[in-house]
Amino acid sequence: MPEPTAPSRPTLEAIARQASVSLSTVSKVLNGRPGVSAPTRAGVEELLRDSGYARRGPEPERGGLVELVVADLVSEWSVEIIRGVERITREAGFVLALSALGDHHEPGRDWITGVLSRKPVAVILQFSNLTAEHRQQLRTRNIPFVVVDPAGDPPPDVPAIGATNWAGGVAATRHLLGLGHTRIAVVSGPPDLMCSRARVAGYQSALAEAGLPFDPRLAGVGDFGRADGEREARRLLEKADRPTAIVCGNDLQALGAMDAAFALGLDVPRDVSIVGFDDVAPASWVRPALTTIRQPLQEMAEEATRTALRLRAGAVENPRLELATSLVVRDSTAPPAAR
Amino acid sequence: MPEPTAPSRPTLEAIARQASVSLSTVSKVLNGRPGVSAPTRAGVEELLRDSGYARRGPEPERGGLVELVVADLVSEWSVEIIRGVERITREAGFVLALSALGDHHEPGRDWITGVLSRKPVAVILQFSNLTAEHRQQLRTRNIPFVVVDPAGDPPPDVPAIGATNWAGGVAATRHLLGLGHTRIAVVSGPPDLMCSRARVAGYQSALAEAGLPFDPRLAGVGDFGRADGEREARRLLEKADRPTAIVCGNDLQALGAMDAAFALGLDVPRDVSIVGFDDVAPASWVRPALTTIRQPLQEMAEEATRTALRLRAGAVENPRLELATSLVVRDSTAPPAAR
Repeated sequence: MPEPTAPSRPTLEAIARQASVSLSTVSKVLNGRPGVSAPTRAGVEELLRDSGYARRGPEPERGGLVELVVADLVSEWSVEIIRGVERITREAGFVLALSALGDHHEPGRDWITGVLSRKPVAVILQFSNLTAEHRQQLRTRNIPFVVVDPAGDPPPDVPAIGATNWAGGVAATRHLLGLGHTRIAVVSGPPDLMCSRARVAGYQSALAEAGLPFDPRLAGVGDFGRADGEREARRLLEKADRPTAIVCGNDLQALGAMDAAFALGLDVPRDVSIVGFDDVAPASWVRPALTTIRQPLQEMAEEATRTALRLRAGAVENPRLELATSLVVRDSTAPPAAR
Repeated sequence: MPEPTAPSRPTLEAIARQASVSLSTVSKVLNGRPGVSAPTRAGVEELLRDSGYARRGPEPERGGLVELVVADLVSEWSVEIIRGVERITREAGFVLALSALGDHHEPGRDWITGVLSRKPVAVILQFSNLTAEHRQQLRTRNIPFVVVDPAGDPPPDVPAIGATNWAGGVAATRHLLGLGHTRIAVVSGPPDLMCSRARVAGYQSALAEAGLPFDPRLAGVGDFGRADGEREARRLLEKADRPTAIVCGNDLQALGAMDAAFALGLDVPRDVSIVGFDDVAPASWVRPALTTIRQPLQEMAEEATRTALRLRAGAVENPRLELATSLVVRDSTAPPAAR
């Protein structure tokens, strides 16, 4: 984050002179208002950045907005993230402004324009592909932002609250090893997501710790969906020497893996144990109820909001954190049956 | 809603004189700001109301707030309601401010105070126990409000968007009758909720239509929870002449009914068919996937938001609507087995 505003910071008048535009144009750019051409906007943004201008934020006062921008409102995650941000926001006397990236019905206006125009107290983002330009725009305006990031890989200078994905992969696999499984497969999410890679790495580490080799034939790759979970699990379970347990990339994939097991006439957990990841609400609805690794999504959102509000007041010691995942044992795992 | 402001409406100065308070005090009351004693606040509210004062709302402009106040963020419903309000709000160029009634950490300040201080463009409420005082406070300030009400029973002069609960009860029961069931039980939600009563009435109407009597011994009453669904279904299914099908008050109760069936060694749907109500996301996660009556929660929230925004501009033809429920057939219903 930029240093607190120095007394010698340039005035907006000086920036207007340098850019050869009116003060009103500079103000429009600063406040995310329309009516400025794209090249002029870019030029003024550059001057704002290079000159070290950083607007002094308004004092925190009751009724200010904390913006939460989510990628979509479809994911089972959404409501848990919203709940966490809303709670801390309300307790701090602010109000949650919620927007979804959605399908961009408004050509020419993206989410950042709206956020800048509303001058929020802080911004929480539930996606990590924030461009360098967006980061700079928020910093120039002294608007603190934090990413709640259960999945992605934000740049190192972006404050972000994640979860211990690697440790979760270890815990899922150790649980199965502890039950006596030795043929343990993995069905992972998209390998371009850091969280997928971390979970698989945790699985491999736990196997190594137990002196078991990693067998690539017991590894499937999916896309965090139910259909790909079913497809990959079916492929694994149709083998003559099928695995007795599957560690899945998320709960939806675990549900698909159950579909595959039942379709093949296998019982869960007697014939095959299945572990999910996330612990979204429906994980306890399914039968057998899903053993899974819990991501504390609400707590992550709460911590992100606290961090953003602290960043207003100055530097924060640990703006990058991973909260602990934890094993939730339900009914989809059991010792392997003798064969 | 009050008539559009007449030119002869009283000024705030006149109200201040009548109440023997300062103009600043009247302004504090009007804008939901603190620093006014409760009796003074009540007196000024009364004058605002009785004098026919109604603040001219600001012209709709981009960036204004649409407030959504929900009872809690725990229900499976929440995210669908949020999604609907957020979409219409965003498309209209406004921003969603979301707050939950929560656990009232702030003594002396209730949700209405915050809403009034933010001067929103419109208010959407996801609960129907709005007091007469709250309604009057919103009306005095010309803030249109609409209740999204899948469950309750708002007063007749409150704009509200609900769902056809009675028709849903009919559709669930007709579906089972069409499969050949004649011993059909019902497990209802709390009888003090209109939606529960409407669904049971629909069940009874469909039975009557088929020439079947309503048997009170086949009716259980619960509280919209999984545990009470299990308890009531178990009681029904332990009978020697057990029902071959159960219409449940909501999806969670249906899940509990499945728990009871499986615990008694009964197969769903072979031994007993089960129908839910709501079609929340996890209804398709369970095995067998739940046949249920869909409440179009997102569409209801969208319609409520559209109605509220139209109310800003003047009267709306149909501020009370029920959107259609619909039968979603999945795997938890089948013809009764021969016994």
